Amino acid sequence: MGGTEAKSLPRPDAKALKGAIDALAARFGNRLITSQAVREQHGHTTTWLKTQAPDAVVMAQSTPDIQDVVRICAQHRVPVIPFGTGTSLEGQVNAPAGGVSIDLRDMNRLLEVHQEDLDCVIEPGITRKTLNEQLRDQGLFFPIDPGADASIGGMASTRASGTNAVRYGTMRDNVLSLKVVRADGEIITTGTRAKKSSAGYDLTHLFIGAEGTLGIISELTIKLRGIPEMIAAASCSFESLQGACQATILAMQTGIPLARIELLNEMQVRASNVYSKLTLPETPLLLLEFHGTEGEVAEHAKRFAEIAGECGGGEFAWTAKAEDRTKLWQARHDAYWAVRGLRPGGGVVATDVCVPISRLADCVTETEEDIARLRLLAPIVGHVGDGNFHCSLLCDVDDAEEFARAEEFMHRLVERALAMGGTCTGEHGIGQGKQKYLKAELGDAAIDAMRTLKQAMDPLNILNPGKIVPV
Amino acid sequence: MGGTEAKSLPRPDAKALKGAIDALAARFGNRLITSQAVREQHGHTTTWLKTQAPDAVVMAQSTPDIQDVVRICAQHRVPVIPFGTGTSLEGQVNAPAGGVSIDLRDMNRLLEVHQEDLDCVIEPGITRKTLNEQLRDQGLFFPIDPGADASIGGMASTRASGTNAVRYGTMRDNVLSLKVVRADGEIITTGTRAKKSSAGYDLTHLFIGAEGTLGIISELTIKLRGIPEMIAAASCSFESLQGACQATILAMQTGIPLARIELLNEMQVRASNVYSKLTLPETPLLLLEFHGTEGEVAEHAKRFAEIAGECGGGEFAWTAKAEDRTKLWQARHDAYWAVRGLRPGGGVVATDVCVPISRLADCVTETEEDIARLRLLAPIVGHVGDGNFHCSLLCDVDDAEEFARAEEFMHRLVERALAMGGTCTGEHGIGQGKQKYLKAELGDAAIDAMRTLKQAMDPLNILNPGKIVPV
Repeated sequence: MGGTEAKSLPRPDAKALKGAIDALAARFGNRLITSQAVREQHGHTTTWLKTQAPDAVVMAQSTPDIQDVVRICAQHRVPVIPFGTGTSLEGQVNAPAGGVSIDLRDMNRLLEVHQEDLDCVIEPGITRKTLNEQLRDQGLFFPIDPGADASIGGMASTRASGTNAVRYGTMRDNVLSLKVVRADGEIITTGTRAKKSSAGYDLTHLFIGAEGTLGIISELTIKLRGIPEMIAAASCSFESLQGACQATILAMQTGIPLARIELLNEMQVRASNVYSKLTLPETPLLLLEFHGTEGEVAEHAKRFAEIAGECGGGEFAWTAKAEDRTKLWQARHDAYWAVRGLRPGGGVVATDVCVPISRLADCVTETEEDIARLRLLAPIVGHVGDGNFHCSLLCDVDDAEEFARAEEFMHRLVERALAMGGTCTGEHGIGQGKQKYLKAELGDAAIDAMRTLKQAMDPLNILNPGKIVPV
Repeated sequence: MGGTEAKSLPRPDAKALKGAIDALAARFGNRLITSQAVREQHGHTTTWLKTQAPDAVVMAQSTPDIQDVVRICAQHRVPVIPFGTGTSLEGQVNAPAGGVSIDLRDMNRLLEVHQEDLDCVIEPGITRKTLNEQLRDQGLFFPIDPGADASIGGMASTRASGTNAVRYGTMRDNVLSLKVVRADGEIITTGTRAKKSSAGYDLTHLFIGAEGTLGIISELTIKLRGIPEMIAAASCSFESLQGACQATILAMQTGIPLARIELLNEMQVRASNVYSKLTLPETPLLLLEFHGTEGEVAEHAKRFAEIAGECGGGEFAWTAKAEDRTKLWQARHDAYWAVRGLRPGGGVVATDVCVPISRLADCVTETEEDIARLRLLAPIVGHVGDGNFHCSLLCDVDDAEEFARAEEFMHRLVERALAMGGTCTGEHGIGQGKQKYLKAELGDAAIDAMRTLKQAMDPLNILNPGKIVPV
């Protein structure tokens, strides 16, 4: 894909790079890969940022493998970029200074399950779907669902969340402890399996969302939940965006423990109607999921239906039957493909912001006006319980004029979210794409503090350089 | 109180100290206090650590006040120790190197309430009870309840939690954003009011639990909850500790959203029977609280009653009437005074550990054996849903022989918790009292990382020196 190339950084000295790659070849044999195709795949972003390929890829199989890559790279001052599934959206896996990508996909073991404690220990490369398949027999699941079948290590590194964060929190809330390979190859243990602790600085959260710039996660202990007795789905169209948002606010205030509450705006509903052959009213739509016992689910659905009625919601349908659930949520499940169908062959640029929920209706409304004004196609899907929403921008990133409009749109979207007390990204991270907004969001002193942390933890600047806060 | 004196640190140069105090006197007038009584009160620990008084106390009224104290102290290399209500339990407010205590009690305003967003902005000195009184009219509350009517800033600084963390999380989970005065007097903003964010390093969590050693919290944005429609209390005696813990585990696995689940061990029940004139069976007791609608509360109580029955629980009584709730929870409400009643005039040393819940019964049982072997009086109360428990050690800290036994007990308690995969403190923090256990818990590399963070954020080592990880 075309788009914008993030700033290239000074590359390592050629001799040093050769030294590192020779040493890695000696240590890893054919698990060191330097073919162009593999390198490009590891610097491939799934969005508007151009690929910046690393110089080599190592397929790691164990924590000592990661330690050795980091030590060799530190010795030669060569960058190291951790790689999970490559599904991050802001250029987190790009290699603007070249260097070595550590591919963690083979470190995908579920190491321990503690059923009574509702936790498990995993390697970073296991994906959420694989993990949940392995947990199912024990009646447990890991609730974070960012859409993509991402690696859990990558999800921790980007502080990912997704559709059911409204009930279960984000990666920030679901990691008990990490093992992290620091910049000199030593291993930091950040916590224990205790559910809570006041023992010293919160190293766990230091690495969650750090995008591999402070250390490389080599093991995680994460919280699990019991699979609920019943899962029910519901849908409800609203006369207005304000009504849909107001219903969400009231549901949150009265403590209905919604497992998912997703907003589709008019354009998204229209796209879904076409793609999935549905006949939904082309007005804002809320899709909900309830988890609990039969009694709980029925009560929660009933309470939500009452609220929806007060807020201009139309017919409220809910069901616990798997087949009917799928139908009710069809529009959401097919959202991505429905969007692509609006402009076959085009690219999709995904971007997200998050605002206090009281401002969500305003923010989405103004964003819709901007989309129309800038003659863009960009359906909106929101994790409305969190105030977080995504625009899927259908854009030919090789058309300079169109891409300029897309960039203007993204820029104004972030400015709008910040002006409403929100953040430039609810769940995609900073990577390369959103660095320019961090200062506007948090101010100089916060950026200084982040830079100070980076320099302290990675004095040679070899850990995923050029991401978050370049030093 | 007697007990152990934590290591004194090198004091500031006398001339520098005088310079700082003169400058503070010029700036703050009679809000700078140097009387011995006030100084000693600000270095008073409520437990076994001896008082180490600061050289002066400043009554701060605003963020610029905090900034000026920090700037003046930085200029003269004089320590600064933040002070909320002085209810921390591991010497967090002590001044082992002397210096200036910043008393934040007058910074106690509720600045903004955002009812729709379920958050509010507060000054750090507001206490949780005051805050909740001010929120009540709006149907909102802040759920963290560590027992003491602590300041919210102090609770954030020690990563406090308490009886209803099992449902609402700890301070770690309930802070959206902080303003922090850093070591050079500048202000860091750590986040926004958005419910979630992936924007850069998690500065918020860097300061939560840092005990004022990395910066001084001058403002907090915290999450609120809607006051539940119904609050019900329940109690159930168990034949065995194992049964009580097993019931808790099953309740958690099946997802009953308990608001509180507190364990009282036999000795605590005995103490409560005497003090509160109750006739509870002198076996382990669980006290529960349910929050929700009438229907939810009834269902949760019914489900728990079934589980309790399977686990050897006796009569299960629950009620939503305020008066009856108080009666059912009498033993818990009076626990502290019941403990003191076991040995009138003696001191109480409070200590806590936290283990994976599967090990809680083992850990409490072995701890009870140790209490008997060491001829100590130490009832146990546990936040059993979190695997966290407290021993209230009745101990004459001025009796060297007895205190040696108490110290042996506390040491073995921590070793036991660590051996079971737990932490040396679930909610009291490290302060001075538990520094010696951090390395055993997390290892050298983690301690190095903590020291690196401290040095990077506070290069002059003026922020609450001698706490967590002395440099």
